Amino acid sequence: MKVLGLDPGLARTGYAVVGDCGFDLKADSIGVIRTDKDMSLPERLAILESELVKVIEDSDPDCAAIERLYFQVNTKSAMQVGEAAGVALLVVGRFGLEVFGYSPNEVKQALTGYGAADKRQIAAMASKLLGIELSNSCPDAADAAAVAIAHLNFSRVRAATRRAL
Amino acid sequence: MKVLGLDPGLARTGYAVVGDCGFDLKADSIGVIRTDKDMSLPERLAILESELVKVIEDSDPDCAAIERLYFQVNTKSAMQVGEAAGVALLVVGRFGLEVFGYSPNEVKQALTGYGAADKRQIAAMASKLLGIELSNSCPDAADAAAVAIAHLNFSRVRAATRRAL
Repeated sequence: MKVLGLDPGLARTGYAVVGDCGFDLKADSIGVIRTDKDMSLPERLAILESELVKVIEDSDPDCAAIERLYFQVNTKSAMQVGEAAGVALLVVGRFGLEVFGYSPNEVKQALTGYGAADKRQIAAMASKLLGIELSNSCPDAADAAAVAIAHLNFSRVRAATRRAL
Repeated sequence: MKVLGLDPGLARTGYAVVGDCGFDLKADSIGVIRTDKDMSLPERLAILESELVKVIEDSDPDCAAIERLYFQVNTKSAMQVGEAAGVALLVVGRFGLEVFGYSPNEVKQALTGYGAADKRQIAAMASKLLGIELSNSCPDAADAAAVAIAHLNFSRVRAATRRAL
């Protein structure tokens, strides 16, 4: 299974397509879609749309996972994240991908077993699991990878639970 | 000039295409795009997208106006408004329409001359200016009409100021 992890934002949207090969994880595609703050809001959203279409067409994921942030620092930033997330979810739905939402705590728990882990610890664990260095250069890509990995982990647990019953 | 006013929301997006004929205002098209809460988020956003495309194709506005809500009651509702607004702005941009953003206070000021007017007063004034009854049945449509009217009023003031200088 290949999961498209997304960390939406107006200035930077992190994405990571992570697949599981047995018990190993592999990043097919990982990066950040950036938009220029001097452009108009509709132009920025159109760039996010077209770049995300390219990512999905190139990497052909089976589903998507996104972190649901309900406790942004302020409502202005929540609105901006929402605007980017709305466009990202629209695109994902256009490709028929099911979307799974996780809270920040669920992502932390899945990666480190510790719901209060900080961003650095999450990035370090995602780097280790994928065998690539994500720590400092692109936090948004690391966050996208983390939610994709969290979804793969939760799916495994669900599958194992079903088998055990 | 015909302005598409938008009051975005995930469950209900109000829209109103308002034109000025001399000093009279006329609503070409007004209504609410609804999405079913039992559908997935990407499905709901896809309905908003396709219905808004129809509104724009049918009424052919020259530009769009939207209320920028930076002080939602909570960040969850700000995120949801943001998701709908992101899709609405993407669609508007696809038609090459310039978008003008107004704060709630600017809309109230433009319609009633009073920045602290309540929703009922705004709806009553929009109804009066457009010669149609908007007060109770569809508050989202009334809010969309209000921001379109506010943009027409601000445009007139700007035009008059330029002529006077």
